[in-house]
Amino acid sequence: MSSQKLDEVVISKAIIETYTKKFLENLSLDVAIAGGGPAGLFAAYKLAQKGHKVALFERKLSIGGGMWGGGIGLNIIVVQDSGKAILDELEIRTDQYAPGYYTANAVESVGGLIVSAVRAGAALYNLMSVEDVMIKDARICGVVINNSAIEAAGLHVDPITVAAKYTIEATGHPLEVLKKVEDKCNIRLNTPSGKIEAVSYTHLTLPTN
Amino acid sequence: MSSQKLDEVVISKAIIETYTKKFLENLSLDVAIAGGGPAGLFAAYKLAQKGHKVALFERKLSIGGGMWGGGIGLNIIVVQDSGKAILDELEIRTDQYAPGYYTANAVESVGGLIVSAVRAGAALYNLMSVEDVMIKDARICGVVINNSAIEAAGLHVDPITVAAKYTIEATGHPLEVLKKVEDKCNIRLNTPSGKIEAVSYTHLTLPTN
Amino acid sequence: MSSQKLDEVVISKAIIETYTKKFLENLSLDVAIAGGGPAGLFAAYKLAQKGHKVALFERKLSIGGGMWGGGIGLNIIVVQDSGKAILDELEIRTDQYAPGYYTANAVESVGGLIVSAVRAGAALYNLMSVEDVMIKDARICGVVINNSAIEAAGLHVDPITVAAKYTIEATGHPLEVLKKVEDKCNIRLNTPSGKIEAVSYTHLTLPTN
Amino acid sequence: MSSQKLDEVVISKAIIETYTKKFLENLSLDVAIAGGGPAGLFAAYKLAQKGHKVALFERKLSIGGGMWGGGIGLNIIVVQDSGKAILDELEIRTDQYAPGYYTANAVESVGGLIVSAVRAGAALYNLMSVEDVMIKDARICGVVINNSAIEAAGLHVDPITVAAKYTIEATGHPLEVLKKVEDKCNIRLNTPSGKIEAVSYTHLTLPTN
Amino acid sequence: MSSQKLDEVVISKAIIETYTKKFLENLSLDVAIAGGGPAGLFAAYKLAQKGHKVALFERKLSIGGGMWGGGIGLNIIVVQDSGKAILDELEIRTDQYAPGYYTANAVESVGGLIVSAVRAGAALYNLMSVEDVMIKDARICGVVINNSAIEAAGLHVDPITVAAKYTIEATGHPLEVLKKVEDKCNIRLNTPSGKIEAVSYTHLTLPTN
Amino acid sequence: MSSQKLDEVVISKAIIETYTKKFLENLSLDVAIAGGGPAGLFAAYKLAQKGHKVALFERKLSIGGGMWGGGIGLNIIVVQDSGKAILDELEIRTDQYAPGYYTANAVESVGGLIVSAVRAGAALYNLMSVEDVMIKDARICGVVINNSAIEAAGLHVDPITVAAKYTIEATGHPLEVLKKVEDKCNIRLNTPSGKIEAVSYTHLTLPTN
Amino acid sequence: MSSQKLDEVVISKAIIETYTKKFLENLSLDVAIAGGGPAGLFAAYKLAQKGHKVALFERKLSIGGGMWGGGIGLNIIVVQDSGKAILDELEIRTDQYAPGYYTANAVESVGGLIVSAVRAGAALYNLMSVEDVMIKDARICGVVINNSAIEAAGLHVDPITVAAKYTIEATGHPLEVLKKVEDKCNIRLNTPSGKIEAVSYTHLTLPTN
Amino acid sequence: MSSQKLDEVVISKAIIETYTKKFLENLSLDVAIAGGGPAGLFAAYKLAQKGHKVALFERKLSIGGGMWGGGIGLNIIVVQDSGKAILDELEIRTDQYAPGYYTANAVESVGGLIVSAVRAGAALYNLMSVEDVMIKDARICGVVINNSAIEAAGLHVDPITVAAKYTIEATGHPLEVLKKVEDKCNIRLNTPSGKIEAVSYTHLTLPTN
Repeated sequence: MSSQKLDEVVISKAIIETYTKKFLENLSLDVAIAGGGPAGLFAAYKLAQKGHKVALFERKLSIGGGMWGGGIGLNIIVVQDSGKAILDELEIRTDQYAPGYYTANAVESVGGLIVSAVRAGAALYNLMSVEDVMIKDARICGVVINNSAIEAAGLHVDPITVAAKYTIEATGHPLEVLKKVEDKCNIRLNTPSGKIEAVSYTHLTLPTN
Repeated sequence: MSSQKLDEVVISKAIIETYTKKFLENLSLDVAIAGGGPAGLFAAYKLAQKGHKVALFERKLSIGGGMWGGGIGLNIIVVQDSGKAILDELEIRTDQYAPGYYTANAVESVGGLIVSAVRAGAALYNLMSVEDVMIKDARICGVVINNSAIEAAGLHVDPITVAAKYTIEATGHPLEVLKKVEDKCNIRLNTPSGKIEAVSYTHLTLPTN
Repeated sequence: MSSQKLDEVVISKAIIETYTKKFLENLSLDVAIAGGGPAGLFAAYKLAQKGHKVALFERKLSIGGGMWGGGIGLNIIVVQDSGKAILDELEIRTDQYAPGYYTANAVESVGGLIVSAVRAGAALYNLMSVEDVMIKDARICGVVINNSAIEAAGLHVDPITVAAKYTIEATGHPLEVLKKVEDKCNIRLNTPSGKIEAVSYTHLTLPTN
Repeated sequence: MSSQKLDEVVISKAIIETYTKKFLENLSLDVAIAGGGPAGLFAAYKLAQKGHKVALFERKLSIGGGMWGGGIGLNIIVVQDSGKAILDELEIRTDQYAPGYYTANAVESVGGLIVSAVRAGAALYNLMSVEDVMIKDARICGVVINNSAIEAAGLHVDPITVAAKYTIEATGHPLEVLKKVEDKCNIRLNTPSGKIEAVSYTHLTLPTN
Repeated sequence: MSSQKLDEVVISKAIIETYTKKFLENLSLDVAIAGGGPAGLFAAYKLAQKGHKVALFERKLSIGGGMWGGGIGLNIIVVQDSGKAILDELEIRTDQYAPGYYTANAVESVGGLIVSAVRAGAALYNLMSVEDVMIKDARICGVVINNSAIEAAGLHVDPITVAAKYTIEATGHPLEVLKKVEDKCNIRLNTPSGKIEAVSYTHLTLPTN
Repeated sequence: MSSQKLDEVVISKAIIETYTKKFLENLSLDVAIAGGGPAGLFAAYKLAQKGHKVALFERKLSIGGGMWGGGIGLNIIVVQDSGKAILDELEIRTDQYAPGYYTANAVESVGGLIVSAVRAGAALYNLMSVEDVMIKDARICGVVINNSAIEAAGLHVDPITVAAKYTIEATGHPLEVLKKVEDKCNIRLNTPSGKIEAVSYTHLTLPTN
Repeated sequence: MSSQKLDEVVISKAIIETYTKKFLENLSLDVAIAGGGPAGLFAAYKLAQKGHKVALFERKLSIGGGMWGGGIGLNIIVVQDSGKAILDELEIRTDQYAPGYYTANAVESVGGLIVSAVRAGAALYNLMSVEDVMIKDARICGVVINNSAIEAAGLHVDPITVAAKYTIEATGHPLEVLKKVEDKCNIRLNTPSGKIEAVSYTHLTLPTN
Repeated sequence: MSSQKLDEVVISKAIIETYTKKFLENLSLDVAIAGGGPAGLFAAYKLAQKGHKVALFERKLSIGGGMWGGGIGLNIIVVQDSGKAILDELEIRTDQYAPGYYTANAVESVGGLIVSAVRAGAALYNLMSVEDVMIKDARICGVVINNSAIEAAGLHVDPITVAAKYTIEATGHPLEVLKKVEDKCNIRLNTPSGKIEAVSYTHLTLPTN
């Protein structure tokens, strides 16, 4: 341990002030992203890279979603050519397994996505869940978020609202945000049936560039 | 989704073969590290950087330990000068908060530590817990590991053994490995009392270089 | 314990390599069976006996399903003439209780079914659940499986795919696979109503030969 | 609902800024109180009334502790003469039940204690647990606190430190803070045995003035 | 502790007799209120102030509902002009944050609401849930209540009935009472659809005066 | 259902008043019995029969303890000659199984013990646990009881006290009351070791007359 | 404890043989009753009294259902004239509370019902749940029962069948048996709607004679 | 399904009678074995083969213990020469992996051990736990068993006793039986310390012949 004298209260202050200052800035966003799996992280990275003010909200303590476990817990992911291009851009190592199929380390991929998103300027909030959306004039104009530890502890506490010009649903299978919208608005979605359609993923796919 | 034709069985094979090949190589290590928090990750990075064959075993699905939550869930960490040197080496951005106190983004720090450790050559195993140690001739010569999902599901399944010249305890407060050693050996540890001594951390400290 | 010198790492290697080699071979099957109760086991035995490449996937750590408990936990099963023929073939002892009714030891019956299925060449995977099916050109062409300990531990990890020319639903009352198919395809089943029909079993029946 | 136009982001900002400003001020206290039952609340009230800078930390979402339930859930409390004097001071109604015995409404008593403590200037933090104490030069000089929802959700997140000239243990039977001190210091307490002594409360008593 | 001699049995008697006497009086009410959050508490206060015989039933051990946690656990509430008028009436301190927006201490607000309601003459029952309503001649004429600890412990125990000329639903989002009514009566509610309509609260609002 | 008009509030009043009147009378007892298994019930019956004022407190909703399940859930009990004499006295049917061994219906035995105890004048309180004992002048002079549903729901609520000249420990293996006494008093019990001694019951025995 | 020599194996044999002999006799019944609350117990008593072969199956370890807790856990029940006649017949003491309203001890009432039912010849099976019914020729001709401890432990074990000329649904609100019948048969029940109709009990009523 | 007419009550009778007849015979044993893992199963097989009257009691619904999961859930076991001899005797297929190391299918091994034990004449009781031992004249003369579903459901039900000339502890790491003996007898075990000594298994070993 460092021999430098330690002032614990300075540390407490530094954590609270630094976090709060950034959080207050992020109460009005260009884009709010619900869900911190690979799709949400890559969207955060790309949008921040293009200069948009982006924040991602992930319910869990850790960010990375289903990517941590690769397939059945073996922490390897497999991508095709379009996915390899993304991993190359993120400087994540790939190895060709078969023509058109590349493997990468799942843990490194999560780490690389996080680092790229933060460095591009995206704000990543873990332990924050998107409970609802704010709708005004028939348009989603923000997200209603809560401390997900409070939620996990089964306590009844009100959320707060973050304004956002655009909201991206990246919670994967649960489609938590979209279902709230469907419940509240009875709107017709831009799909063949006008409703949320059944989706089946059998392996991990990174969104194409 | 890519328009490229997808062969799911090739993907299954790629995941299983790639993971297993590396896992078999890692059954004999220079250094086994128990625990994937910042201390374990930094040890993995430094040792791998120096050319040692290192694997880290983390019980949780995600790697990063207590660092994800910063302080009380506000995802900011605070370091002093020695810690700043480490973050600089890992190319993680710091901001001076007060003389000798620097803040960094906790999520970026986890991502950066993971990426550096993997790129240096360390193997990071998530969902793997160190249940016990292998002791021969009064010396720890390996770790006994298990699939931690099996453990979490409360199932009784036998572990396997990984040989290691050195074992690093990085499980933090629980000191899970060290307690096993103390239970099994009745050895005198290299501390004033000869036993595990009470330790109190009030904030996060990265091990100095 | 044996006085023979023991090399734990050889044991670890033997387990991983032997398991993985067989698992890779079983990623393309003639028949995939979901569920390891008596119906699934007997199907595995009969199909393997006829030379088909068969693997059975059972969610629990143990194989045998509801047969272990006989009736209300009294580990005796009762069969009629057709069931007796099967038990005779499996060399499981039966005793006549009344004309046309035979009792057998439930535990021996599980053991006998397992041994016969494995010896006939079927692969039995415990701790593996069938999460979904792979459908191509309106035909089930494989199963999507996961480590069921991960599932039981409530972790979000992606599954992998196993190709199979035929898939047998043997999960019993839950009909887990068939319900997935019904959900995904809106297909008309080959039943009077075109849907899964309510089924009531009041005692254990082995499938007839 | 009000017809006044509502700006949700202003509300979010108001909550975060107001809370944080006060919290930063309270990182250095005259007195830190662990536990928000009647003893802790009354201590907070009295000390704040005398001009001390006081904050109380309560693990639960609600403040009031065991007082809410009166006796066996019948929300009535009973006090003797000294307790009646306190309730009179807090303007909480009492009724004489028998000579020297007075009843009061348990719910009103909690409300009255809270209002008096806040108006006297004490800061009351709910959802905050005291995990540990900070000891320097053999003296308790602060408390180590955490978000108790995080704790209740079983997540591993580091605490922060609050400096305090004095710390009051008011967690009641659990004596959570005192046990930490005893564990860490092997100090001799100011009791007959030098250790924490068994305490038995059979009914609620307010600390005398 | 007081030096006055203590007779525990007198205390037991005082609690039981005082509670029961009041409870028997409250078995016939002018108004029964289900739910002890800010809306229910304020209704109890206003109605009692106007001379009505009112009792409020809250399932939890503590009264105050979602107000304890402010927004995302930061114990600050924000009101606009109409809300400020209420807080002024309750003598709860407010601070202007921005024109038309005022902050108040969430904990003090709960305490103040409770004290005002009790002093106005309302009876507040914690640990009591409203399980059902009594309907006679197509009119709600009372509530069916139970000890909510029994309910929480999963025990099967019958409730009792309290007569009330009017019943107020103040359980918030769950709308527990109204749903029972809808289930039992197939009545048309006084809403556009005739049914319970989806409601979305994004922040805390006190009922206007 | 009866065609007689039903006044639910009269029923509520009847339950509350009848229960409370008896409970108040039982706050001062000759004998308090902790535990409602066969030993406690028989003690209650015999002591009440002899004219003592007795109340029994049982934590569970039902009274009868381990007797309900006979042996391994087969609801038959077996007694020898002394036990048969008791069952004869309680008018519970026995059948001789072997010389000196008699079987009885376990469910009837519970019912018969309850009816005999109540008719003899004992008060039986279910859903009430004995948390502690009241000790004055080195003598147990009462029990400290609580609503066990509150306890089961994990809520923190204070108990009340019941005075008793004698207290009988009938909680069986847990010896809950005796352990409290040992903890609080460091007294020497009237056993060979002076401490609670290990006890092993392998079948049900009724206390002899 | 008795000084008589004790042979534990004789006791084990006595329990198993006595239980099994009776159970085998009860596999063909006149009437099977599902549910051991007051309605089921009284039906068992009356039918057995009239010479029918009756068995009652109760899921819980104790018999008596919701009657144990009186109202809100106060163990008093209230009956009107028709109920008083029943209690008189069962020799359970009642006290007039108001004209036409009588109170009785809930615990004594359970005991008395059990004793009367057993003495009249009814078999009472605790720890046995009715999982399903046996239907032949569009008529319920038996019940399908299981060990409810196995069910509670979440184990998958097959049930057994008991033949019965008549089956009585006495599970109260859950209507577990009737719902199975409705699911399996799509039959029209003898009610206004032809379906199970919503039922609301606000207090305990014993079935009239 | 068979076209043979089915009499469900005959099936119920057959199960109950067949089970009970055997169970009554097994209340006096030569050897009682606690635990149904590979060690217990092999002991049961060998002792039964030599003509001893043996019963094995296993707490779980399935028999086989830790063997089902091979190592870390990969269902392969590894044996050395002595273990291979056992598997050969049980007709379980082995493959040489390295000189002196053989692999076998874990699932087949469980099945084979069960079949051999039952065919040799051992009685295998699943869902039965050994709770205690019967000690007379300072000698273990039997086991005290219970239905483990009842135990798992958290119900308080008395066990029954089975006499046995010898008792084998085969519960593995938990050493459940031996710990009971140590607790009850304060006897000196036949080990260096006279106490149960710490044991570490790092892989599966079958008992040598």
